[in-house]
Amino acid sequence: MAGETGRYGSVYGGVAEPCTVVLFGASGDLAKRKVIPAMYDLATHNALGPRYAIVGFARTAMTEDSFRSGLGEAAKTISEVGPIDPKQWDEFASHLYYCPGDYANPESYAQLCKRLTELEAAKNLGGNRLFYLSTPPEVYPDIVQQLGRACIARPIFNQIVLNVFDEKQVYRIDHYLGKDTVQNLLVLRFGNGIFEPLWNRNYVDHVQITAAETLGVERRGGFYETAGALRDMIQSHVLQLTSLVAVEPPAAFDATAVRNEKLKVLQSIRPFNLEMVAQSVVRGQYAPGKIGDKPIPGYRDEPGVNAASKTETFVAGKLLIDNWRWAGVPFYIRTGKRLAKRSTEIMIQFHCAPHIVFREREVEPNRLVLNIQPDEGISISFGAKRPGTEMSIGNVTMDFRYREGFGDTTRSAYATLLNDCVRGDATLFDRGDSVEAAWALVDPILDVWSAARTAKVPQYPAGSWGPRESDLLLERDGRRWYNP
Amino acid sequence: MAGETGRYGSVYGGVAEPCTVVLFGASGDLAKRKVIPAMYDLATHNALGPRYAIVGFARTAMTEDSFRSGLGEAAKTISEVGPIDPKQWDEFASHLYYCPGDYANPESYAQLCKRLTELEAAKNLGGNRLFYLSTPPEVYPDIVQQLGRACIARPIFNQIVLNVFDEKQVYRIDHYLGKDTVQNLLVLRFGNGIFEPLWNRNYVDHVQITAAETLGVERRGGFYETAGALRDMIQSHVLQLTSLVAVEPPAAFDATAVRNEKLKVLQSIRPFNLEMVAQSVVRGQYAPGKIGDKPIPGYRDEPGVNAASKTETFVAGKLLIDNWRWAGVPFYIRTGKRLAKRSTEIMIQFHCAPHIVFREREVEPNRLVLNIQPDEGISISFGAKRPGTEMSIGNVTMDFRYREGFGDTTRSAYATLLNDCVRGDATLFDRGDSVEAAWALVDPILDVWSAARTAKVPQYPAGSWGPRESDLLLERDGRRWYNP
Repeated sequence: MAGETGRYGSVYGGVAEPCTVVLFGASGDLAKRKVIPAMYDLATHNALGPRYAIVGFARTAMTEDSFRSGLGEAAKTISEVGPIDPKQWDEFASHLYYCPGDYANPESYAQLCKRLTELEAAKNLGGNRLFYLSTPPEVYPDIVQQLGRACIARPIFNQIVLNVFDEKQVYRIDHYLGKDTVQNLLVLRFGNGIFEPLWNRNYVDHVQITAAETLGVERRGGFYETAGALRDMIQSHVLQLTSLVAVEPPAAFDATAVRNEKLKVLQSIRPFNLEMVAQSVVRGQYAPGKIGDKPIPGYRDEPGVNAASKTETFVAGKLLIDNWRWAGVPFYIRTGKRLAKRSTEIMIQFHCAPHIVFREREVEPNRLVLNIQPDEGISISFGAKRPGTEMSIGNVTMDFRYREGFGDTTRSAYATLLNDCVRGDATLFDRGDSVEAAWALVDPILDVWSAARTAKVPQYPAGSWGPRESDLLLERDGRRWYNP
Repeated sequence: MAGETGRYGSVYGGVAEPCTVVLFGASGDLAKRKVIPAMYDLATHNALGPRYAIVGFARTAMTEDSFRSGLGEAAKTISEVGPIDPKQWDEFASHLYYCPGDYANPESYAQLCKRLTELEAAKNLGGNRLFYLSTPPEVYPDIVQQLGRACIARPIFNQIVLNVFDEKQVYRIDHYLGKDTVQNLLVLRFGNGIFEPLWNRNYVDHVQITAAETLGVERRGGFYETAGALRDMIQSHVLQLTSLVAVEPPAAFDATAVRNEKLKVLQSIRPFNLEMVAQSVVRGQYAPGKIGDKPIPGYRDEPGVNAASKTETFVAGKLLIDNWRWAGVPFYIRTGKRLAKRSTEIMIQFHCAPHIVFREREVEPNRLVLNIQPDEGISISFGAKRPGTEMSIGNVTMDFRYREGFGDTTRSAYATLLNDCVRGDATLFDRGDSVEAAWALVDPILDVWSAARTAKVPQYPAGSWGPRESDLLLERDGRRWYNP
């Protein structure tokens, strides 16, 4: 197999077994923007090998040719993997197939099944199939049940999924977990001698996790009205990041061991009751404002949004992890749309030195910042002596930028995760019990909010760092947000 | 006083009291190259204020004018403080005086005393006098005794010095201690929350201190024959650096508290006996070799050096500090002339993570490197995830460069220390008991060497990293030198 890998083959760890990827929602935005470009990236870096097929399935009636050319056009303009090489695209496109159908109609699945069997035989693909659900969550149950009935799969929803598939066969994609910096959290902590000794309540004062977007709801107002920031971002990405920061050393670096430990973190987060939601959770909604010089409409003015909407576009909260490592160390989390800057980062603030012997008594605490997007990197801020004879302390930063350190070989997070799917490595994917634990945490918050019908949702100007209540959440504890 | 400070006044902490500096050895190389330029730097940055005088004393007979112009010429060519402004130099030179005399002749001191009294009266300088001994050590006793007799000073060598001066009035200059990075060691450790917890036997595997020169003995062969690397570098600079790395937190950042703690370190270093010298100390002498493309003569071929000389130009050693913090953590030290690179640095190597869960089992240990010269800075090396889906670990570095972090405002180490002298702050100077403790450590080594008359001194090619025995010293412990 090693002989078949090209120059970049090693980036993806060699060539996968022959396989067929069935892409549900193949005509949608996510497929065009992320999934197909990621598959193209894998293919052009020889990670898929010569024998693979990608079969699109969606409601839209179109020919295979127009499916291929439509994706080609999209890849050239909105792909996030960099420039597309026309010749390589043509080769890749020859592996694309399209099968229109209705998600709830057994007949469509029978046709799909027939097509898959033919393709597998004609191209000697073996029976290795990856079903990728790039559709709205509402149709997940239909797809999974129909796949089960059509006997396309051997051995949600979790329940619905697990009636048909074995947990080991399910890859719940959270593209945050495909980022190198996110995985690097585990390397940083468990591959080095100097970080882990500091990674606990004795040395850490608190942790901040920020997932800030400058975008609004764009054309997804209708969907967003039914979701909100808590479901859309906290339940998934932010709690995943939390569990990676807080996780205990796994017994091994494999899917079961890592995911067991992550689950333990989620299960140790103190559950929210009515009083805690009032004290420790802040929601907000963006009002009209400015980002740079550009005037931005408020959330309630967006197309598809109720003019009296109570859907939150911002959430800040304080999590307490009740275990030996983290007792008394708050994890402040926040996410929001239309904030001042696009940035996802984790900041670990350490205690100050217990006693300062220098004249200058006010020293800044040390901070370790893990930038996850847009620029992946790590920095440590610390006090150093200012030049000159006075013993005066200045705050300086030591930096490591992923791009500079390793060259620009960062792969798209989708490509990383798809590569793991086709190889059967589930380490970086959410597991069912972990998803349920995350829901168990956010559900009581949703309940409190929906019961508080007359409560107003605090507004914040677009382009700010959220409502005043978010700052107060930390000020009450004598702390402040560290804005990226 | 603040009103009198110029733009850079704060670099030196404001203006000193009026004072007179008496510079013994004023016609020598050190005075021209380091001391006078440092005084000029202090003066032009308004650290000396308008009222000061510098009175040169030396054997050379010359007029005040030729003393001034001679220093002016030298400052323009060999000064290490950057370009000299002619107008500022002229102002500075008007504060320079010269008084020729013999170091052992009471008559000369009577003349000096008369001159000082006149100058102090004429220029309203007060009685604040700093005696700077920029002479060969041989004449120190004469100078100090004569100063005592001439009643120029109120309240050795140490004994001779302390018969005349109070310990608080003595500033033993080790210019290494004036480097920002050296002082920064104390800030780094005691002004931050994240370094000190790791700074002990639980997390540190070993420490390396390297003071490497590319220069040979130049025109100082005759002097060097009587000194050698152990006396010239280890007894002074390297043991000072060792004590700063290993020091316990002082009760305060003042001269007494810091120097008490440094002394404790020197007193805790396991004394050398015959067996330990044989096992843990390596000496060497440079043989002919190359630095870059340039052929370099061996030490025994240098002018003024005995062709059968046994004087060491290289020393490497292993120190053990017998206290709770450092038990079992070796401090490997080395210094040498004609080595591959000019660099003084301290490297702290930490233990590897106690258990590696990743497939890649061979990970590099973390290293914290403090560069002291030529470029002052700090770096940490650590393992990070290589981009790509494989969980592969690469070694990367986080850097902080003093010049980049604070701008190029680094002062010469001599200026820093002179400034402390004229202000009466002795924190950064060696104290008598500490100097004696350092001698107590190296004296048994010198004794063993001088007793071993037939033993050969290992040779190393100029431009290498010292004799093979130096590498073996670490290899026996399963370690290796970390060459800058």
